[in-house]
Amino acid sequence: MASLSDRFEHALTPAAVRSYLAEFISTFFFVFAANGSAMSSRKMTPESPMLDQFGLVATAIATAFALSVAVYVAVNVSGGHVNPAVTFGMAVGGHISIPLAIFYCMSQMLGSIIACMVLKFMTVSQNVPVHGIPDEMTGFGASILEGVMTFALVYTVYAAGDPRRGAFGTIGPLVIGFIAGANVLASGPFTGGSMNPAYSFGSGVVGGSFKNQAVYWIGPLIGAGVASVVYDNLVFPAQSPEDSIRGITDGIGV
Amino acid sequence: MASLSDRFEHALTPAAVRSYLAEFISTFFFVFAANGSAMSSRKMTPESPMLDQFGLVATAIATAFALSVAVYVAVNVSGGHVNPAVTFGMAVGGHISIPLAIFYCMSQMLGSIIACMVLKFMTVSQNVPVHGIPDEMTGFGASILEGVMTFALVYTVYAAGDPRRGAFGTIGPLVIGFIAGANVLASGPFTGGSMNPAYSFGSGVVGGSFKNQAVYWIGPLIGAGVASVVYDNLVFPAQSPEDSIRGITDGIGV
Amino acid sequence: MASLSDRFEHALTPAAVRSYLAEFISTFFFVFAANGSAMSSRKMTPESPMLDQFGLVATAIATAFALSVAVYVAVNVSGGHVNPAVTFGMAVGGHISIPLAIFYCMSQMLGSIIACMVLKFMTVSQNVPVHGIPDEMTGFGASILEGVMTFALVYTVYAAGDPRRGAFGTIGPLVIGFIAGANVLASGPFTGGSMNPAYSFGSGVVGGSFKNQAVYWIGPLIGAGVASVVYDNLVFPAQSPEDSIRGITDGIGV
Amino acid sequence: MASLSDRFEHALTPAAVRSYLAEFISTFFFVFAANGSAMSSRKMTPESPMLDQFGLVATAIATAFALSVAVYVAVNVSGGHVNPAVTFGMAVGGHISIPLAIFYCMSQMLGSIIACMVLKFMTVSQNVPVHGIPDEMTGFGASILEGVMTFALVYTVYAAGDPRRGAFGTIGPLVIGFIAGANVLASGPFTGGSMNPAYSFGSGVVGGSFKNQAVYWIGPLIGAGVASVVYDNLVFPAQSPEDSIRGITDGIGV
Repeated sequence: MASLSDRFEHALTPAAVRSYLAEFISTFFFVFAANGSAMSSRKMTPESPMLDQFGLVATAIATAFALSVAVYVAVNVSGGHVNPAVTFGMAVGGHISIPLAIFYCMSQMLGSIIACMVLKFMTVSQNVPVHGIPDEMTGFGASILEGVMTFALVYTVYAAGDPRRGAFGTIGPLVIGFIAGANVLASGPFTGGSMNPAYSFGSGVVGGSFKNQAVYWIGPLIGAGVASVVYDNLVFPAQSPEDSIRGITDGIGV
Repeated sequence: MASLSDRFEHALTPAAVRSYLAEFISTFFFVFAANGSAMSSRKMTPESPMLDQFGLVATAIATAFALSVAVYVAVNVSGGHVNPAVTFGMAVGGHISIPLAIFYCMSQMLGSIIACMVLKFMTVSQNVPVHGIPDEMTGFGASILEGVMTFALVYTVYAAGDPRRGAFGTIGPLVIGFIAGANVLASGPFTGGSMNPAYSFGSGVVGGSFKNQAVYWIGPLIGAGVASVVYDNLVFPAQSPEDSIRGITDGIGV
Repeated sequence: MASLSDRFEHALTPAAVRSYLAEFISTFFFVFAANGSAMSSRKMTPESPMLDQFGLVATAIATAFALSVAVYVAVNVSGGHVNPAVTFGMAVGGHISIPLAIFYCMSQMLGSIIACMVLKFMTVSQNVPVHGIPDEMTGFGASILEGVMTFALVYTVYAAGDPRRGAFGTIGPLVIGFIAGANVLASGPFTGGSMNPAYSFGSGVVGGSFKNQAVYWIGPLIGAGVASVVYDNLVFPAQSPEDSIRGITDGIGV
Repeated sequence: MASLSDRFEHALTPAAVRSYLAEFISTFFFVFAANGSAMSSRKMTPESPMLDQFGLVATAIATAFALSVAVYVAVNVSGGHVNPAVTFGMAVGGHISIPLAIFYCMSQMLGSIIACMVLKFMTVSQNVPVHGIPDEMTGFGASILEGVMTFALVYTVYAAGDPRRGAFGTIGPLVIGFIAGANVLASGPFTGGSMNPAYSFGSGVVGGSFKNQAVYWIGPLIGAGVASVVYDNLVFPAQSPEDSIRGITDGIGV
């Protein structure tokens, strides 16, 4: 095991810095498309106060497509997390060091904020949509819903990055996008289907509202941690140290 | 051939238990997204008594995406059936032992029930949609429709898992999701496009209605059995024992 | 070169018969989903006399998904044509013998007819949609539109089956489905986007109308023939006999 | 380095001419489907003056599907640019010579013009949609929006063609289509989501309007250039000359 000092050195190598840049760019791509599609739908139906059915389908497709791409373009350099919950799940499983994980999350949050700022500027100051929950829902229930969906997302990320799956790894970025899109369709009018604290944080910062922000951190982080434990220990336990799935994020740099 | 006792032992090894867990998790993912998307659509149009066109497109996309993912994450450990009809089809072809198949189906039904319970709880007791057929349709006609569509699904599962297809196997989980999504679009206002007894059973249990439940068992099981026979014996008969497609589910465990 | 007698013998071997069965099944899957989705949309909006926007999106997605699957499940045994225009294009390029091509087309037309009959029976005799063109369009213009789109489809089929593309072949069935779905979106309110004489023939037989049937044969067959010539001779000419793309359909049987 | 004369010779070899033909055909396919889907949506809702929500979803799906296919069918011969911005980005990175790039762009623009002419003729002179921006937006803001989205597109093209990604290259054409589709959803009611000067130019020529044409050239070219620099120098710098990503377009001809 590396000492704390070694680990921090590891977190500041050129390869590590490139991985932060990759996470920043990918999260920017994802949030730009996902949040932008919600803004486009709203602009087209100004009389409708909130997301309608059309907007739900549009946002789900944008989420699926953009997350697939965001993971794809970063996967070889940073692992393609694009999401603090994914990074947290990888840290729980020991697949990324704590210092690296912290920089990852900061890069993701910054990418999300910049994406929302560009959207606000581009659309001549139309309000940026912020994740929120309907009146009849409690924050507790919403957290569980986001947690369950993030469990599915992080479990899929684990599966996609598992080298024991052989050629199936090739379509990994696609299925990661697909599970996010499917869950947006399932949860749209309830929590909006964030599954991503950086996404919710960025839209909160630029949209100027932190109401229910906790829902989008507590649920996803717990869901991600549970997914990590279930995948690594119950469903796909490593037979020996040699065939662990650590390859996902340890191979930083090309 | 293994004796009955050996077979039951085989059904309780750690590898087998992991495969049941994988089926449980994957069926949960699938039913959560597919049924959740129907609930989301309904919440957005409370004045509409039943699934409208928007809901049909949303549910079809959620079905395609979520089933692709559900198959993908389980394929290396359990074969990724996610559906008692698929398991039945594999049993008919001799690709899974009867004891294993029974535990598979139980895991799938449990996953579906839990997914529907989470949806009901999350959405503050909104009713869970239950599969049903319109007045002008008979149960016999509905069974045939579900049977024909399940034939297409199970035939595709067979093709996707056939090692003689070489690199095409890589996109197998995607096409399995695609055929399910396409069939939902084709059958939505008629039978709802279940093709999955566990899905219909779980929503029936939590939704509190077993009207027409038989349609969603008889049709899919017969369609799956016929698909198994047609694929293995007519279209892609094994040339020799060595190149059979048994590899799909026999390789339980990693 | 084989003699005519040898060629007919080749057309009646068990491997050849299996490839006809594969074409029959795949065309059934495709027409069932594509035409069924148009029927579902119409049932949901009975006041609307013809395909509306929702129906267009639904039909395009069903077409893309179902054609991907139909090609996928047949590709290893028959090449996955699923379409007389594709078979014609392959015959023009010399990649399939004339006797085989004739049986292919008959299998595809039969699959389409049976699919439309099942849809009509299942939906309690709802009329099966038949391809047609709006009043302001001429048959000549419609033929050119169908021809241009079939050119794109058959050119894509050629590319997908070209062994010189290496690993890209793996996603071939997906892109074949995608070009069909994109063209349905582009042409829906004009010609319906058939690109497939067997599809139009089957719906014509069961729907009881052959008005404009010629449009869906002449356009696609010419477009397919041109695609074959352009691909093989202009864009991707064979450098030598050894690296031709004949492998697509010559390797009938597994 | 080749002399100017050698380079021009290189630009007129049979392999080079085939690559221009491939770019022409692919751009035709893409513009036909993307612009055709916008025309189809408009025909279905003649009372609506501009693109509505349905049309946005339809156009985004057509864009994603058709661009995936357009890249796919050309990738082995020309690299599958299908877009002057992509070609410009490749030229900035030194991955294509200037003379070749000029012929590429001319082929793409010609393909786009012909596609729009066919659409206009086919649809009995319905007006071809031209990219434009809403009143409240400035040309400067619109250029930045198109530039940001083209950055994402070209960055993805770079990633998809990078041989260091190994098997992930197989799904490259799909993710290129996906990012374009996601960005159309994000920007539809603002700039229309062109990201492609040839597309905007062709629709401008046939639609008879060059208002805001500069937006669709300046933004995308700058975005593409920046993407090239960021990808090659910051995120994925070449470790040595041998493992550069030049393989994308240098291997013209098969």
